[in-house]
Amino acid sequence: MGIPNPEHQLDHTFSEEERAAVYKTIYSRRDVRGQFKPDPIPDDVLARIIQAAHHAPSVGFMQPWNFLLIQRPETKKKIHDIFLAANEQAADMFEPEQSVQYKKLKLEGIIESPINLVITCDRDRGGSVILGRTHDKSMDLFSSVCAVQNLWLAARAEGVGLGWVSIFNKKALKQALKLPKSVSPVAYLCLGYVEHFYTEPELEVKGWRKRIPAEELLCFEEWGNTDTTGNEGLYQALADSNN
Amino acid sequence: MGIPNPEHQLDHTFSEEERAAVYKTIYSRRDVRGQFKPDPIPDDVLARIIQAAHHAPSVGFMQPWNFLLIQRPETKKKIHDIFLAANEQAADMFEPEQSVQYKKLKLEGIIESPINLVITCDRDRGGSVILGRTHDKSMDLFSSVCAVQNLWLAARAEGVGLGWVSIFNKKALKQALKLPKSVSPVAYLCLGYVEHFYTEPELEVKGWRKRIPAEELLCFEEWGNTDTTGNEGLYQALADSNN
Repeated sequence: MGIPNPEHQLDHTFSEEERAAVYKTIYSRRDVRGQFKPDPIPDDVLARIIQAAHHAPSVGFMQPWNFLLIQRPETKKKIHDIFLAANEQAADMFEPEQSVQYKKLKLEGIIESPINLVITCDRDRGGSVILGRTHDKSMDLFSSVCAVQNLWLAARAEGVGLGWVSIFNKKALKQALKLPKSVSPVAYLCLGYVEHFYTEPELEVKGWRKRIPAEELLCFEEWGNTDTTGNEGLYQALADSNN
Repeated sequence: MGIPNPEHQLDHTFSEEERAAVYKTIYSRRDVRGQFKPDPIPDDVLARIIQAAHHAPSVGFMQPWNFLLIQRPETKKKIHDIFLAANEQAADMFEPEQSVQYKKLKLEGIIESPINLVITCDRDRGGSVILGRTHDKSMDLFSSVCAVQNLWLAARAEGVGLGWVSIFNKKALKQALKLPKSVSPVAYLCLGYVEHFYTEPELEVKGWRKRIPAEELLCFEEWGNTDTTGNEGLYQALADSNN
């Protein structure tokens, strides 16, 4: 280990309680579409969850994100109209029976949530050659998604609900937000305190789709090899931990 | 609030200690390229972090991910060769001075880390029309990235280091892993216990790039509007919380 180095976390362990808190957050995080309360989110809470996003991993430490905060009713109304148009198109894409069920689902809380937050990705930040993005141009978008997930978990720990709205014509959304060509609106998020959180994903509760048993998603060394020889313990531990 | 409903978390609050644990995880998470120890990761730990990934949000509850576990030296060697070829190309893309610095950086721990894990995205899972993906075809890839970030944070809380390797020719990687056409290798991850974690991102410590002050990334209502009137408190809270 050598000489202690202030750049290194030598005591990098977590207590049992700390670990449990992380899993509690992960398991109780929900995509919130309804249940928003109008109560404002205090500045210090909002700052903490935005800093959490800003401390996400990013390819080549590019930090390609911006945080576009939307609070005015007239901006929300404009975005909501773009959602409504896209959602009508979306409903027509499903088979008739599913389409009926689809139309009954509430899929966003743009108007009711006190804060809308757009996490973007500036594809040009830091120049054209980015460490780690040389062979996969999507890596910067993926970094912004990591920021979303950090923010989502931090929000959950703060008791703040978050819903990710993705049903937009992207061109119309970019235009409404005046995003330059190089900036992609990775995630449109609705944030606010909530009456309650669902215990399971809302789409599962409402019968849209079931959770897949985790052990069915495992494979070994190459795609399609599900022979668990030598990994029986992991397979069983995963099967036992499904809820 | 109405009648208590077992599907709802009515007491959905976190204690101060639980919140602190979540932020500790977010702030101490690092992209690990070196420092891996050969010690095996116990099955129960591996199962917990994979379940954490499986409990990520996914568009239309699609759960598009699989977990492809790589443990054999011969598979790692094959993947490492694909990395080496791409990394040589990558080094040549930078300006001469940066290229020299680039070549000195250790960017992966494929061979030394006991576990390599590929998180994939099956673009065809659940049919062609997916709730929430109707207007943004990337949403399923983004779901798999959320799974990566959940796994990364859970791993950190378990004291397990994780490095995301993205410098591959994607076609060569898909071929080596025998991924079908519809399956994208979203993230190639190296996992293992570590000698230490860096206190700040390794690329920052090594002078590659600096962290952007969070408040500089804020804008309001539309792109380019950085007028903080009415949001002075948030701006200041963000500025005060930079580390």
